Amino acid sequence: MSMPDQPVTACLLIIGNEILSGRTQDANLAYLGRRLDELGIRLMEARVIPDREDVIVETVNEVRRRFTYVFTTGGIGPTHDDITAACIAKAFGVPLIVNPEGASLIENPVSKAPGFRMGNVLVMAGIPVIMQAQFESAAPGLTGGKPLVSRSVTVDLPEGAIARDLGALQDSYPEVEMGSYPFSRGGRFGVRLVLRSTETDRIEAAAGELDAILASLGTTGMWD
Amino acid sequence: MSMPDQPVTACLLIIGNEILSGRTQDANLAYLGRRLDELGIRLMEARVIPDREDVIVETVNEVRRRFTYVFTTGGIGPTHDDITAACIAKAFGVPLIVNPEGASLIENPVSKAPGFRMGNVLVMAGIPVIMQAQFESAAPGLTGGKPLVSRSVTVDLPEGAIARDLGALQDSYPEVEMGSYPFSRGGRFGVRLVLRSTETDRIEAAAGELDAILASLGTTGMWD
Repeated sequence: MSMPDQPVTACLLIIGNEILSGRTQDANLAYLGRRLDELGIRLMEARVIPDREDVIVETVNEVRRRFTYVFTTGGIGPTHDDITAACIAKAFGVPLIVNPEGASLIENPVSKAPGFRMGNVLVMAGIPVIMQAQFESAAPGLTGGKPLVSRSVTVDLPEGAIARDLGALQDSYPEVEMGSYPFSRGGRFGVRLVLRSTETDRIEAAAGELDAILASLGTTGMWD
Repeated sequence: MSMPDQPVTACLLIIGNEILSGRTQDANLAYLGRRLDELGIRLMEARVIPDREDVIVETVNEVRRRFTYVFTTGGIGPTHDDITAACIAKAFGVPLIVNPEGASLIENPVSKAPGFRMGNVLVMAGIPVIMQAQFESAAPGLTGGKPLVSRSVTVDLPEGAIARDLGALQDSYPEVEMGSYPFSRGGRFGVRLVLRSTETDRIEAAAGELDAILASLGTTGMWD
């Protein structure tokens, strides 16, 4: 993979009424988010949209101009509500033949259903096992940047207890993105702190300072 | 609740880098999608966006004009990356005092953290148990339409086997939205068919015809 100067960005379009209705839990965003980090491609947005032609066409045309890559999942099966391929063809203004003109197939070893790539838009299945196979088949053709590395630590304190010190640490390390994610487990509130950067040595330095902060608060964190 | 003539729509903004990075699995969309269906409010879009002020402000201002209601989750805690409240104030052009001017608090019985409502935007926590309490606290103040009812049947056939008949059935019942959701379980492919409508009698009629179709294909479906 070559290393471009500009940040490489991506948007995921999750297409399907069943996700919006709450009946199906999406599992593709989590997979794609992790894998794109590893490839140095930053997932900037994910959008869940219904199986409606006007919405799909308009959204594809908006986001394919704003992001380096657009990934879509869902709506490429054989039933009447599978309209993604036709919508992609319409968005690009090309006829839908067996495959849209100008598209290249994305094979997968799991099923006979191929996805396809049209320009910077990669069209994949909604079923996670197929989507993942399609993504891995297409990944060598993507141009990424420096991988984003992360370290995270789980702390047995409410988020508020660490807020001030963490804010000060973030100010000292602008190149490390620091996130604080509270959770509730068995009636207790804890927090997971995540450090993300393309600069591994800066992450390690920040992690060391974070350990010292936690010690000063009378606790120790559990690093993943 | 009053019954408006126009469809009542909603958009969910899931705010947080941790969702986009794949480290945290969102659970709020599924809850909200189901509950809004029951209230006769149609969730038309969900968008996952990062903890970035420019993106949050711009997105809030775009979607609050397009949808009846906007729900946000995440970013209302006490740490440096919790910027949602400030962004909502900025989007509405009001100062952020203790609560943004013009906002009303959304209480919850789970924690001391309140959400707030500003115009048609309801700002809630990211932690599901708190978000759910906040939503239920705010729900009586929402104006919905006729509840959307759904029935679904799981069929032990690949999606393609039913595609043609289902398309014909959809043509006969334009007021019933029919979805076909393939899945893979233990190496076998099956499909879940979902009927959704505000007209219960039409759903029942379509379900009866669907049973006859399945029988003609030599199978029976399992209705939820």
